Amino acid sequence: MTSSRILSLLALTCSMVSTLAAQQSEFDKVRTYANAHRHEIVAEYLKLLSLPNIHGDAKALQANADLLAAMMKKRGLDTEIWPTSSGVPMVFGEKRVPGAKRTILFYIHYDGQPVDVKRWAQPDPFVPVVRTDGIEAGGELVTDLSSATFPDAWRIYARAAGDDKAPIEAMLCALDAIGSTQKENVKIFLDGEEEGGGKGLAEVIQKYPEKLRSDLLVILDGPQHPSGPTIYYGARGGASVNVTVYTAKQGMHSGNYGNWMPDANVRLAQLIASMVDSTGKVVIPGFYSDVLPFSTEAKAMIDAVPDQSAQMQRDFGVGSLDGAAHSLQEGLNLPAFSVHTMKGGEVGGVIAANATAEIAMRLVKENRPQVMAERVIDFIRAQGYYIVDKDPDVAMLASHAKVAKVTSRALTATSGGAWRTDPNDPQAVFATNALKAVWGDKVVRIRTLGGSVPASPFIDAFHVPTVGVSIANYDDNQHTDNENIRLGNLFDGMTTLASLMLQ
Amino acid sequence: MTSSRILSLLALTCSMVSTLAAQQSEFDKVRTYANAHRHEIVAEYLKLLSLPNIHGDAKALQANADLLAAMMKKRGLDTEIWPTSSGVPMVFGEKRVPGAKRTILFYIHYDGQPVDVKRWAQPDPFVPVVRTDGIEAGGELVTDLSSATFPDAWRIYARAAGDDKAPIEAMLCALDAIGSTQKENVKIFLDGEEEGGGKGLAEVIQKYPEKLRSDLLVILDGPQHPSGPTIYYGARGGASVNVTVYTAKQGMHSGNYGNWMPDANVRLAQLIASMVDSTGKVVIPGFYSDVLPFSTEAKAMIDAVPDQSAQMQRDFGVGSLDGAAHSLQEGLNLPAFSVHTMKGGEVGGVIAANATAEIAMRLVKENRPQVMAERVIDFIRAQGYYIVDKDPDVAMLASHAKVAKVTSRALTATSGGAWRTDPNDPQAVFATNALKAVWGDKVVRIRTLGGSVPASPFIDAFHVPTVGVSIANYDDNQHTDNENIRLGNLFDGMTTLASLMLQ
Repeated sequence: MTSSRILSLLALTCSMVSTLAAQQSEFDKVRTYANAHRHEIVAEYLKLLSLPNIHGDAKALQANADLLAAMMKKRGLDTEIWPTSSGVPMVFGEKRVPGAKRTILFYIHYDGQPVDVKRWAQPDPFVPVVRTDGIEAGGELVTDLSSATFPDAWRIYARAAGDDKAPIEAMLCALDAIGSTQKENVKIFLDGEEEGGGKGLAEVIQKYPEKLRSDLLVILDGPQHPSGPTIYYGARGGASVNVTVYTAKQGMHSGNYGNWMPDANVRLAQLIASMVDSTGKVVIPGFYSDVLPFSTEAKAMIDAVPDQSAQMQRDFGVGSLDGAAHSLQEGLNLPAFSVHTMKGGEVGGVIAANATAEIAMRLVKENRPQVMAERVIDFIRAQGYYIVDKDPDVAMLASHAKVAKVTSRALTATSGGAWRTDPNDPQAVFATNALKAVWGDKVVRIRTLGGSVPASPFIDAFHVPTVGVSIANYDDNQHTDNENIRLGNLFDGMTTLASLMLQ
Repeated sequence: MTSSRILSLLALTCSMVSTLAAQQSEFDKVRTYANAHRHEIVAEYLKLLSLPNIHGDAKALQANADLLAAMMKKRGLDTEIWPTSSGVPMVFGEKRVPGAKRTILFYIHYDGQPVDVKRWAQPDPFVPVVRTDGIEAGGELVTDLSSATFPDAWRIYARAAGDDKAPIEAMLCALDAIGSTQKENVKIFLDGEEEGGGKGLAEVIQKYPEKLRSDLLVILDGPQHPSGPTIYYGARGGASVNVTVYTAKQGMHSGNYGNWMPDANVRLAQLIASMVDSTGKVVIPGFYSDVLPFSTEAKAMIDAVPDQSAQMQRDFGVGSLDGAAHSLQEGLNLPAFSVHTMKGGEVGGVIAANATAEIAMRLVKENRPQVMAERVIDFIRAQGYYIVDKDPDVAMLASHAKVAKVTSRALTATSGGAWRTDPNDPQAVFATNALKAVWGDKVVRIRTLGGSVPASPFIDAFHVPTVGVSIANYDDNQHTDNENIRLGNLFDGMTTLASLMLQ
């Protein structure tokens, strides 16, 4: 190697080092900002979480939208509230900068799941409480917030604290922190209809295509992997099949008719049991055939994700695992079968005349939802059931040995269909590298997020490369009781999101 | 045969004929009375049915007891209201007559099952309505009762209309009808704690043994066989096992954890399905072994009961029968297994972390309830479940592959245990012949009533021969919605009950 080659290599290295050093300094600024403003960040977030946001409640969601728009305007975003036919508004804001190399659209949802108040440790899931740690770890209620320092281990408990208001707060505070150093054009779209589904997203994509167009779509949703900030390149969609089995027109006294009238609860149990083997594998014909075997590249990516199953089993009290897959990550790349609810029987010591199961399937890009629903329905028919789509009358019940009412819903592009972006796509590589610049090898790359995120409508309309980024703690209890956000995740999330705007 | 033998035989025959004729004339008087007083009988009964009587509601039941005591006093019975420790009163009345050959204690209960109002065709199950026939047969609401003739086909719809206020009304009106021709001492005991169970019955048996002593106990409860007035010589008791299976400390998002966290609904379905084969036969070891094979005499009595299964299947919309027995009657002489309720899962698209089944067994005299409950629990254990009796904590859940909380309740003598009286016992023969005197071959003799009636405490205390008599229509919907009494059954019931007091 000549001296000049060495010198030029050295110069290049120095330039890279100085770029990295400059980036690190920018990230440090975000961290410093977060540390200096913990009190006001938490105060603003508590205010946001105190607004009930149960999906479908248009009036409550309007109040959220109004506050969110005000929060965005405060950060200098050009902000608009978009009405939809359901009455639930969408919120949009953008902040362009000169010389930007790309426009990034961040998608976040601000509606939340219903609450079963009596299962929460606090009186009201919409009166947020702060604890010094997770409830299971003995976290105590903090009653005086005025002098609190809000360390990383503290948590805020409230519906939507993790899913999905956390990235909204982190995103806006990240903009505060980076100020004029923002390098990419930023668009933020806040969906008010994610949890319940609705036509609003399709409507606004049709009405405001130029506003929503971007070079990269970043979905901010879902808890991160236990081992660190998480980027994902795809997500599952789903389909559901509700099945009600009948054995008589109404419940009959189990003393007078036991051993004569069949038990609808037993029949439903037998039907469900016939769908799943003792290990948890679904035995409905074709259930896994669209997906398996995995490609070598897919398998490598799945296997590279750190497996914290043992710790999670202890944390969640999971004494044995479902046997449908060899690992959590493999499982997320397969279709999944759950009976979300099962219910039969009534008051008064009678034999159940009907019993219902809500079967939910989480499906990957390779599945066709309608086909998967049909596979379940065909299987029910193969167990001897006469299938109807309305409540059967007495004559119909009497004329078939087994009757089941079946309704199904297949998630399509407009309601959370599965999607997948090639991890080697340049925009996907940009996003991956941005996160790696902050977190290095801690970044967890996920081929398929287990849950649904409504990226498909954007992908269908704009063919835009899409990734997802998760910042919430893995144990945020999203969709269930005692949902929470760990403050460290909220503050770290600011740096994570800032990285995407600072390249 | 000599002439004198012939003459004496003729004389005996004439005497029998004249006795029979006298009896028939007495029964006719009851029928004539019933026909002449339909309006006031129904009016009194509607008043009784308008008092809510859900078991456990002491205040409501006190109001029933007050009205019932007044109704009994009006008939000249020496009447007492007996308080119990639960606050639910018992009502007792007696009417002795000179020269009586026996004292009969009639047991009836006046409490009823809870109501699921929205499942009823009428706004309030405690605002009785009158229809011109059964709902399914197109019976129409009768709005003007003032000029109604109340034919047999009409029905009264209300909670407890069939179970078990009907025999109270029929009994008291039978006393009105027979007046001074009453031949047996009559005691009437009205239980306010039958449906919910309680200690009241045991308390009053201990406190008032002389009042409750009798030569024959007649339980008035249950619907009659479709083919006619019914006498039964035994009844089933029961035991219950509630089982909750757990798969985690709480529900987890089915997208994020599907294929990893086991589904409690699926696990419960598999557990229940493992207990019952595809025909409906219970495969829990020993389930039928206490009972089978039947004795020749028992089998003959079971087979002699008319089988109206086909009609009942059409009426109730039962497309296929439970395969645990060859006939309804055989089934009632076997232990029966029902899952009264099955429930798992919650709002919000999460995998169910626990699911519960209430298993109810109806047991015959030959079963020991506690042993039967243990057989079920042992079976659950044999499926790999670690059995606990309290809600498990996270550590316990994490340390066992499968955890189930199991609680059981075995009905004992004081709470509805099984019983059986020899049909050849003289008092049982007396009761059978009394009914036959009115109804001839229409009387249906049942070895074992399917449901529970609390005869055991009396049998244990007094070793009294016991039979049961049913007067309500078989399709009275007892314990469920749209409970009703067919007026013909109420009026015919008066003659049936009168026959027991006129021998």
